[in-house]
Amino acid sequence: MTATDHHLLLRALIDEFVRCGMRHACTSPGSRNTPIVITLARESALRTWSHIDERSSGFFALGAAKASGRPVAVTCTSGTAAANLLPAVIEARHAGVPLILLTADRPPELRDIGAGQTIDQLKLYGDAVKWFFELGVHGASAERLRWVRELACRAYWTALDGTPGPVHINVALQEPLILEGPLPDSEPGGGGRPGGAPWTAHSHPAPANHDPQPLQLERAVLVAGDLGVETSDGGHGGPTLGSRLARLAAQARLPLLADPLSGARSGPAAIAHWDLILRDPQTAAALRPAVVYRFGETPTSKPLRAWLDALDVPQVQVLADARWSDPVSRATTRVVGPVAAFLERFTPLADQSDWLDRWTRADSAVAHAIAEPLLPAGLSEPAVVTALAQFLPSTATLFVAASMPIRDVEEFFPALNDPPRVLANRGANGIDGTVACAFGVAATTTEPVVLLTGDVTLAHDIGSLLAARRTGLKLTIVLLNNDGGGIFNFLAVAGESDVFEPQIATPTGLDFSLAAALYGLDHQLVSDLDAFAGSLIAALRSERSTIIEVRTERVANRELHARVAASALTALAATR
Amino acid sequence: MTATDHHLLLRALIDEFVRCGMRHACTSPGSRNTPIVITLARESALRTWSHIDERSSGFFALGAAKASGRPVAVTCTSGTAAANLLPAVIEARHAGVPLILLTADRPPELRDIGAGQTIDQLKLYGDAVKWFFELGVHGASAERLRWVRELACRAYWTALDGTPGPVHINVALQEPLILEGPLPDSEPGGGGRPGGAPWTAHSHPAPANHDPQPLQLERAVLVAGDLGVETSDGGHGGPTLGSRLARLAAQARLPLLADPLSGARSGPAAIAHWDLILRDPQTAAALRPAVVYRFGETPTSKPLRAWLDALDVPQVQVLADARWSDPVSRATTRVVGPVAAFLERFTPLADQSDWLDRWTRADSAVAHAIAEPLLPAGLSEPAVVTALAQFLPSTATLFVAASMPIRDVEEFFPALNDPPRVLANRGANGIDGTVACAFGVAATTTEPVVLLTGDVTLAHDIGSLLAARRTGLKLTIVLLNNDGGGIFNFLAVAGESDVFEPQIATPTGLDFSLAAALYGLDHQLVSDLDAFAGSLIAALRSERSTIIEVRTERVANRELHARVAASALTALAATR
Repeated sequence: MTATDHHLLLRALIDEFVRCGMRHACTSPGSRNTPIVITLARESALRTWSHIDERSSGFFALGAAKASGRPVAVTCTSGTAAANLLPAVIEARHAGVPLILLTADRPPELRDIGAGQTIDQLKLYGDAVKWFFELGVHGASAERLRWVRELACRAYWTALDGTPGPVHINVALQEPLILEGPLPDSEPGGGGRPGGAPWTAHSHPAPANHDPQPLQLERAVLVAGDLGVETSDGGHGGPTLGSRLARLAAQARLPLLADPLSGARSGPAAIAHWDLILRDPQTAAALRPAVVYRFGETPTSKPLRAWLDALDVPQVQVLADARWSDPVSRATTRVVGPVAAFLERFTPLADQSDWLDRWTRADSAVAHAIAEPLLPAGLSEPAVVTALAQFLPSTATLFVAASMPIRDVEEFFPALNDPPRVLANRGANGIDGTVACAFGVAATTTEPVVLLTGDVTLAHDIGSLLAARRTGLKLTIVLLNNDGGGIFNFLAVAGESDVFEPQIATPTGLDFSLAAALYGLDHQLVSDLDAFAGSLIAALRSERSTIIEVRTERVANRELHARVAASALTALAATR
Repeated sequence: MTATDHHLLLRALIDEFVRCGMRHACTSPGSRNTPIVITLARESALRTWSHIDERSSGFFALGAAKASGRPVAVTCTSGTAAANLLPAVIEARHAGVPLILLTADRPPELRDIGAGQTIDQLKLYGDAVKWFFELGVHGASAERLRWVRELACRAYWTALDGTPGPVHINVALQEPLILEGPLPDSEPGGGGRPGGAPWTAHSHPAPANHDPQPLQLERAVLVAGDLGVETSDGGHGGPTLGSRLARLAAQARLPLLADPLSGARSGPAAIAHWDLILRDPQTAAALRPAVVYRFGETPTSKPLRAWLDALDVPQVQVLADARWSDPVSRATTRVVGPVAAFLERFTPLADQSDWLDRWTRADSAVAHAIAEPLLPAGLSEPAVVTALAQFLPSTATLFVAASMPIRDVEEFFPALNDPPRVLANRGANGIDGTVACAFGVAATTTEPVVLLTGDVTLAHDIGSLLAARRTGLKLTIVLLNNDGGGIFNFLAVAGESDVFEPQIATPTGLDFSLAAALYGLDHQLVSDLDAFAGSLIAALRSERSTIIEVRTERVANRELHARVAASALTALAATR
């Protein structure tokens, strides 16, 4: 094979991705993958983001694909470079995020004989990808170019179809890798379908197989978790669907227990503080529904899950695709099909008596009860969440790290009329790649992106801060620094005093102002709410990335959460 | 299952690992894996190293296992945490390094239903592990405890047997995870074999199937690459074997082309500069051997590989195990069996005429020719390699990063009478995890450990510098900072000016003194050889980890390498 063959075939592959709708690609340096990197970088319709660490690259692509709903290409060189993508690939599969992995490989004659940077890349990601294809080595004939264009469309379509997810194309490349002269503009066979349309790339909506009977809506409760990626082809998920759900719940006067990740925690029917409400057995019993409609993923909240688990009423799970996702194992019916079509069956009820009002009274009682212990505690971790709800514009995206931040957002983020978009990695709920993922979101929007994270998560992915320097993207990082994994103080392991701090809490002792200096971010250490609000507003206006650091204490944080829960219980008792 | 069941079973498993010879374990924080972490940390015979980032943990374990020749345990929590181990697992498989991966998992009833931090961990590492076992959930009966002890021995033995490598035990854990009271000292069934011996853990040497005929030794050349891990059970590889090979080569008066990684670049028969010698076609022709004996992996050097490829003489590959590893595809015979036994067949020849002398004359001519362009260039990248050879004590370990450092060490490191141990990741030759791996080496020795690395490699694994702060281990990092991937300036892609710097060379612009400050290392920026030597000697004596930074320029570095090669060619011409 000549270098011209490689470059023509890769240009056709990537041209077709662009015709299908691709807008972003991630690259990492290497030798074997230079033809792929060069082709991506020279495609003017793509923004190409370079990352030194392939793990960062994978998560950056995940964030960009999650936020844009379009497949993002990721390329890396051969060897363990490709293995570094696995965490992001698994998260993408579980979260339903479309990615197209283009791993460079040595050709068969250089495999499995001890050649450098050569591992077995065939099916490297196992079941975590929706489709694997070994591209092989080909001359750039008109037939092969046409075939590779169809293959590109198929990869793009497979990444988006049904439940979106990652696909993997392994690209064997023989030397020479670099062109000796310019690549001809024209392509044997003419360069794809006339008019520029992609060869084939139409997602077909799955037929809804739901029951045509009218829905039972009296004393119904709606529960909405993460609704998945809002795909660019008018797919099923995301905040557009969430706000529609919120509007319909308000019209039908049905309480909507909405995770902020659903985009549905808004409007008069949204119940924000169910995590606290449902801890009170008497209130939970009084608010027992006749039926539950569950949308998207099940929220994290243990009280919610315990409540669902104990309810002996029909629970209808409404799913865009056939994923089997019910950690509570209590869904009595699964309705699979376009969720938006299902929502059309929600008709306003003439009389719901005071069903919604009873929920909203409990919710506002708890909202007031939260404020009482929070106010004297100053700039606590929950207070940061409520301040973000107050000061973030509705055009912003809040990317929330796993572990404590996602739980605090679920517990404390209020219902807003026009909430910011809230995103998180809830496929496998890992803390890995969080910084990279948030930068990936920032690649797709000119509006502010704020990352809410703890210190262990930031330390885990600290190398991804390099994106601030190398991509020029702007991210505001709100760092809750309690010097360790704060969630572990809530678990029984906190009593194992010989191992707890060194092995479980794992305080890093890092001075994050130095991390900010290293990677060229601004850094603000704030210690009261006014300073936090001021720094946040300044950071959102700034041209530069900023770390706004809030120092808290893990034990005090656990105690504050306990006081909040006690205050909520007292308030709920008073409303009975 | 009760927490007592988990803890008894895990204590038996790990007790048996220790009986087999395990001394080190790596942990990462999490909830599901707390029983494993607690059991490892409470086993007094183990040193347990905590890492926030599982990728760092895997590579740290790889370094400790490579340096000690003993399997190292690695545990992590469920979900993508386990996926972060893949790069180190693949490197361990290719480099023949024994690891035992203990991934915590949710039990079957919590899998594949959307529960948090749950992915499919069965066979997660595919063919990269030698053995996968799903442990299941068990009550701690005497029978099961005996079974788990045998299983531990089998895992340990499998990791070491034949070609060492990683094994994976997936550990499902049900709640509750934490003990309510102390674990009983005694164990149902008595706690393993009386006297403390492990159940079964004997590696058997593979029978040597070599030809019993006397070896052809006239005009033989010996080539020694990385000889693999020197296992604690008297295994096949490592510097002990390398120095034996060097002694035998000297006795037999046979030129020994030894990679520093072999430990055999020492004594009067060692040829150090074959990379430069073999670039001269006339010298290469004049030094044509009658037979080549190749030990271990094939060195990286392209001139060496081209020379082996073109030789039409018998090439005997001597391998400790049945790995098929010949990137040149020119071995005419493979002799599989204990290498040490094979070496006993090397008998000193009465007369080798001047065969060795002709090689050593060329080698010393090149050694002098190298010095000529190097001296006026001051503190260049090659000069750092020669200075390390000069100032490192023989008890030290030099860990060499992939990419340029390993090639410069191969080209410029002289033959020494008593060389330091030289280690590198040459399984898949990745740059990932290099810092963690060097810290892992430091965990196994009280002697100095020096890492030679470029800036891209350090930036790729920068989070692993946290080990300096959290483990207290001491590492001296010699950083060749040419602000980008220096090796790429040697490749054709350097001419692709639109993409070269942003996508291939990828300069980070990082000020590594800030990285040192962040992670609590000392930092010295040196600009001449005397300052380098002084800083190196001071760092070796210091109690703290140090980054000694040498700034170079990529284009100047390539030109210097070209001048060195030209000078060597001139010198070789003069010796003819």
